[in-house]
Amino acid sequence: MTDIIEVNNTKKTQEVLPILAGKKPFFLCVIANTETAKIPGISAAGANPEITDYTPAADMEYLYYEKCKSIEGVPITPDGIPTPALITRAALELTSIPMVPVIGGLNIYPQTPYIEFGGKPGSDISLGSAVKNVQEVFQLAQRFGTEIAKIFHYIVLGESVAGGTTTALGVLTALGIKADDKISSSLSVNPVDLKKQIVEKGMKANRSKPGDFKNDPLKAIELLGDPMQPVLSGIAIGAAKHIPVILAGGTQMGAICGIIHTLNPNVINNIMIGTTKWIIDDKSSDLIGIINQINPEIPILAANLDFSQFKYDGLKAYEKGIVKEGVGAGGITIASILASNGDISIEKIHQKIESNYAKLI
Amino acid sequence: MTDIIEVNNTKKTQEVLPILAGKKPFFLCVIANTETAKIPGISAAGANPEITDYTPAADMEYLYYEKCKSIEGVPITPDGIPTPALITRAALELTSIPMVPVIGGLNIYPQTPYIEFGGKPGSDISLGSAVKNVQEVFQLAQRFGTEIAKIFHYIVLGESVAGGTTTALGVLTALGIKADDKISSSLSVNPVDLKKQIVEKGMKANRSKPGDFKNDPLKAIELLGDPMQPVLSGIAIGAAKHIPVILAGGTQMGAICGIIHTLNPNVINNIMIGTTKWIIDDKSSDLIGIINQINPEIPILAANLDFSQFKYDGLKAYEKGIVKEGVGAGGITIASILASNGDISIEKIHQKIESNYAKLI
Repeated sequence: MTDIIEVNNTKKTQEVLPILAGKKPFFLCVIANTETAKIPGISAAGANPEITDYTPAADMEYLYYEKCKSIEGVPITPDGIPTPALITRAALELTSIPMVPVIGGLNIYPQTPYIEFGGKPGSDISLGSAVKNVQEVFQLAQRFGTEIAKIFHYIVLGESVAGGTTTALGVLTALGIKADDKISSSLSVNPVDLKKQIVEKGMKANRSKPGDFKNDPLKAIELLGDPMQPVLSGIAIGAAKHIPVILAGGTQMGAICGIIHTLNPNVINNIMIGTTKWIIDDKSSDLIGIINQINPEIPILAANLDFSQFKYDGLKAYEKGIVKEGVGAGGITIASILASNGDISIEKIHQKIESNYAKLI
Repeated sequence: MTDIIEVNNTKKTQEVLPILAGKKPFFLCVIANTETAKIPGISAAGANPEITDYTPAADMEYLYYEKCKSIEGVPITPDGIPTPALITRAALELTSIPMVPVIGGLNIYPQTPYIEFGGKPGSDISLGSAVKNVQEVFQLAQRFGTEIAKIFHYIVLGESVAGGTTTALGVLTALGIKADDKISSSLSVNPVDLKKQIVEKGMKANRSKPGDFKNDPLKAIELLGDPMQPVLSGIAIGAAKHIPVILAGGTQMGAICGIIHTLNPNVINNIMIGTTKWIIDDKSSDLIGIINQINPEIPILAANLDFSQFKYDGLKAYEKGIVKEGVGAGGITIASILASNGDISIEKIHQKIESNYAKLI
């Protein structure tokens, strides 16, 4: 069993992985709220739609303190399945990878230190207008990416955005990338039609058509995206001019790749996606199909996480395709294995996840 | 001429300097506003008392963009002498040392990325109550310090706080450290009596006596300090558990040493002060006299900056003891020389300061 699955472009990954081996990256997790998450049936990142506002903050608190401060317990799906922050925390802990939360735009701030670029929480994209100050925030984030590239070997960028796959579909559609049936979901049954309807409603409201903003991704974010996107793509572009960047996430990172590739195709050779096996195995979404429309050369790596042998049903549920990814889980698992030069196997990460979960329940 | 003056404890500095040589630190500049700065005659960090609110933000913008966004030009004293951010920027530029602004508590935020811990702007200490949420902010900052210590060889912490020497006197007095005649000033004539009166008025208002908080520095900050102090001392303590920390500043860093030494004497062997020759030469203040009361082992290094041969009067004025230090100028000059393994001499930094200044005027 291989711990890191090289999904595509193995020529590139076999060239890059040895370079990253033994190196410790910096992990930045970009978090945001969007009202889109509160549309019933859209997000499982919270026990109910209203509480999704707390999910990104609580995820960051869990990563920082192994304990949430803004909510009791940890973020769960409506079925009680715990946040992927459990995976991220276990992997970060084993390798001492430093992390810091980055604010996209929030209603509820984490009780942790954070980096901020002045972004505001996002609106419901079905109303046709989504994110404020995109240009400004993007520029600051890009400058910051260049700054941190001076010192790190590479960086890993994760996200925690309830409703974020719907806003990803919004941006991808505005960019002219066909993704209606390719976007993942934290729910076990992907509400594909609902997401499509929301994006269509948004486009109707702002009188746009698919592909209208194929040359203007920042406008696409403004109209149909979320506040994580200008920050994450800005940091990625700023840093990828100098160092490798792992986009740690699922199909949301497909949208980020679309944004980056349109804004600055030159940096794309320093961009990789790091995700989980559950995203790659997901029949209801198609990350590779998204990436192939952007640039098939963008390497996708997947952490071979497998919870099927776990004691706890809350974790076993991941094998049924619930949650799947988020909070940089896949990318940080990969980074942790790489940083340890293989000393930390996926098996050790599995054990750590289970023992951390045991402490929670 | 030596570029880095080892002011005291040369046994320690000769041990540490070779360890830092060739290493690039991370520079964090902690900025804050305090109403104390608006007391007439107290601060030269701004052309008039009201504009001191803009000084920290503008300093950060200058470091980031070589251009301020929140104000026209750059921060100047009432006599038109420019901010020490000029020195810091020149040194950072030459060595590509990464930096990020950190918010202590502000009325005016910089138009840059920043790290934040939830601190609020500070009140006028003569009213007897100065800083909110000190405990909370300190804890977050400390945790963050531990986090960044995972990846950097060492860090440099600077400050930009108009009115900050008066709040330093407040904290030092509350800690029982005699500093009435030892605190520096950005003004060429140090308003020693005025500062003393302000602190006395504050103590009268909160019914405390010098030394009352010698075991409780966070309470000292709350009553007589400024919002930079819990953040800077928190990051310093968190980081100094693992890596060396240069406190880049003048007598304000004396107060920080007092706070750190009281809260966690174990980390003090990883703490150094990096300042400018102008602070060491200053007859109206006595950084060494402050440090000797805390722990004479804390090494003080001074950048041998000398503007006497400069073309421009605005810069030459530094030799008359105006401004002297701030925005991490001395410590970053030292770090830049160290990082370059001596390739970058103080002479090159002088030239860069002059050419950057020429662009401004």
